[in-house]
Amino acid sequence: MDWEHLPELGQGPLKEDRIVTTPVAGFTAGAVAAGIRSDGREDLALIAAARPVTAAGVFTTSRLPAAPVLVSREHLAAGEGIRAVVANSGCANAATGPEGLEAARATCRAVAAALGCEPRQVLVCSTGVIGQPLPLDRLTAAVPALAASLSPEGLPRAAAAIRTTDAVTKMAQARTQLAGREVTVVGLAKGAGMIRPQMATMLAFLLTDAAVEPAALGGLVRRAAEASFNRATVDGDMSTNDTLLLLASGEAGNPPLREGEAALEKLEEAATRVCQELAAMLVADGEGAAHLVRVLVTGAPDQAAARALAYAIAHSPLCKTAFAGADPNWGRILAAAAAAAGLEDLPFVPEKTRLWIGEALVADRGLPAGEAAEKRAAEVMRRPRYQVRLDLGLGRGWWWVLTCDLGHPYVELNAEYHT
Amino acid sequence: MDWEHLPELGQGPLKEDRIVTTPVAGFTAGAVAAGIRSDGREDLALIAAARPVTAAGVFTTSRLPAAPVLVSREHLAAGEGIRAVVANSGCANAATGPEGLEAARATCRAVAAALGCEPRQVLVCSTGVIGQPLPLDRLTAAVPALAASLSPEGLPRAAAAIRTTDAVTKMAQARTQLAGREVTVVGLAKGAGMIRPQMATMLAFLLTDAAVEPAALGGLVRRAAEASFNRATVDGDMSTNDTLLLLASGEAGNPPLREGEAALEKLEEAATRVCQELAAMLVADGEGAAHLVRVLVTGAPDQAAARALAYAIAHSPLCKTAFAGADPNWGRILAAAAAAAGLEDLPFVPEKTRLWIGEALVADRGLPAGEAAEKRAAEVMRRPRYQVRLDLGLGRGWWWVLTCDLGHPYVELNAEYHT
Repeated sequence: MDWEHLPELGQGPLKEDRIVTTPVAGFTAGAVAAGIRSDGREDLALIAAARPVTAAGVFTTSRLPAAPVLVSREHLAAGEGIRAVVANSGCANAATGPEGLEAARATCRAVAAALGCEPRQVLVCSTGVIGQPLPLDRLTAAVPALAASLSPEGLPRAAAAIRTTDAVTKMAQARTQLAGREVTVVGLAKGAGMIRPQMATMLAFLLTDAAVEPAALGGLVRRAAEASFNRATVDGDMSTNDTLLLLASGEAGNPPLREGEAALEKLEEAATRVCQELAAMLVADGEGAAHLVRVLVTGAPDQAAARALAYAIAHSPLCKTAFAGADPNWGRILAAAAAAAGLEDLPFVPEKTRLWIGEALVADRGLPAGEAAEKRAAEVMRRPRYQVRLDLGLGRGWWWVLTCDLGHPYVELNAEYHT
Repeated sequence: MDWEHLPELGQGPLKEDRIVTTPVAGFTAGAVAAGIRSDGREDLALIAAARPVTAAGVFTTSRLPAAPVLVSREHLAAGEGIRAVVANSGCANAATGPEGLEAARATCRAVAAALGCEPRQVLVCSTGVIGQPLPLDRLTAAVPALAASLSPEGLPRAAAAIRTTDAVTKMAQARTQLAGREVTVVGLAKGAGMIRPQMATMLAFLLTDAAVEPAALGGLVRRAAEASFNRATVDGDMSTNDTLLLLASGEAGNPPLREGEAALEKLEEAATRVCQELAAMLVADGEGAAHLVRVLVTGAPDQAAARALAYAIAHSPLCKTAFAGADPNWGRILAAAAAAAGLEDLPFVPEKTRLWIGEALVADRGLPAGEAAEKRAAEVMRRPRYQVRLDLGLGRGWWWVLTCDLGHPYVELNAEYHT
């Protein structure tokens, strides 16, 4: 992909439910209110596969991984076909020690008993406050009703149940043709890193009816994450529970896809598109955000340098508050990149840099482009979605990340007491 | 120094003028309103030495250094005795190209003419908005009045004139005995990194009457900065103009101090104390901060690991908003450290970590220490100053940094239009 052909960012409101009602052959889903959350909302979701399916995942690299992350990694590594994903909101089951680990295992056992499979065929996820015990009795008591709620149309209900303080339900879909058969990818997600007072997780589940060799699915999901969730930042804080899972039922009947095959690339494109849409929804729903901003760095000596400077801008509180105020304070954007270049010993030549806010060139060769450009930039910055592009004029490396503004709602949401 | 003997953080209000009226033998200072700021406040400060003095500096490592940074570096490198430091608020003279460089040189020429010295004996600093031209005519027209304002009692006036949106004037002093003679170190500072809407600079000037060999002064000032300003973070954004200067007049009459001498260490201790007090004042005056928090990481495998995790906590928006809300959300603090450890491949063993907020142990071996501890921690967090300590239980490495909370006033100050 070329940076000149990145997807449109769109113009609609940032906070809007995105519901996908398309079922995915081979999967059912459901949810119940298990009483883990105190507000009585549905808080326990289940995705079930009719037969064992191929699965792969990407997990947080935090050194304080939550208990369900440890158990799901172990169950994926066991290499058996997966039958279910169970996920609760309201409690992260992180920093909960051996009891937390046992609670995650007990959750898998309860679901396995209800579905008639082995516990190691069940993946488990949690999202909520860190350091509080999972109310296991209430959770396991709700599992029979949870299993009874399963239906092919149940994915939106599962997507709603994994929300914590998410303002909206987040789903996306893509279709592609593989060996003459239409296959579907549906994704659901919640959170946006550690962005909210009561939760600490990004979860995303992708389902497809395509058939994929187990060895090929792991690479596909890692590359899709790299091109989507790994470019989304709200506050630079990685959670203890971050999990992305991709389950492939094979019900489409295509010959199982292998690594290196052109058809696998088509599925990867579809999965990446779903992941990118979900990642944009996560950032748009971040910390009371009013603006989704794509930070694009081009003309870098290499990709790594472009990435480092893009993140420096995307994480800078001064840039993010300027985004909140629709303030075309381009000096802050240049300064954030120049500071990072200094700290990380990356090339940066002020006389070669150019900076655009939307289509407005606001700084040309390190100098102000003038008041008319700033006025145009201020108009761009009132839009819900826009792009900031810094060209270093040094080479062909480029990278983009999605970020959001830092306004009063972020402080409101995050300064309150957590219990 | 041992981490168990770090200086007290104090209990008084955070926002309080700190004025030092002690003169430093060999120096005079003054200020005038040159009309660089639009509000008519004094905005041009001068510190002058009766005779050429030894000087050394530490400058921003940003790849977009402001014009005065380039000129001051050049003048220090020329190696002549320094006669003056001129500093303006209201305009950073950064991202101003060749015209900005010429404006910084012209400022030095005007001051040199007024004092009867060479332009390369004048150091120059600016602080204010990036990307706006320095109003050189108004500035040079004010230089005769500026020179006329010089007096041995003028340091507080200079300290006030370099403020931009600083809430308070920041000065500190220390005394020590060298070869039987009492010597004085007085420091003045403004800003706190890039923390305010209208400014983009941290400036700090230290004056001493001690005599120091030129070769020894550079090392002293770098080490003092490392133990003070380089541990102070408000928003992680480094400015285009950051400058710390130390001028030594030698009027105390001690034999000039050389590198490696015990007496040099005494002066370094005094200078470090002054720098640490100023650095704490900068953070306390940061972004509308209500809390000054020292983040101490101990028990790390080495110093570098301790430093990386201390900064991860000090920069985490989730930790900083918890500080603003006096919310003992210890899970966020552990999660921020664990995430950084994962990203930077540093050892982190949850079962060995302990976390204190003030004197309250809130997480013990990675598990909650209980509600009573959280309640005590919540009380600590209502204080204007407190310490958070994370012990990794892995080794003897330790590091501390100063940070502040991220509350509504930060957003208020930073989301507004910059012109």
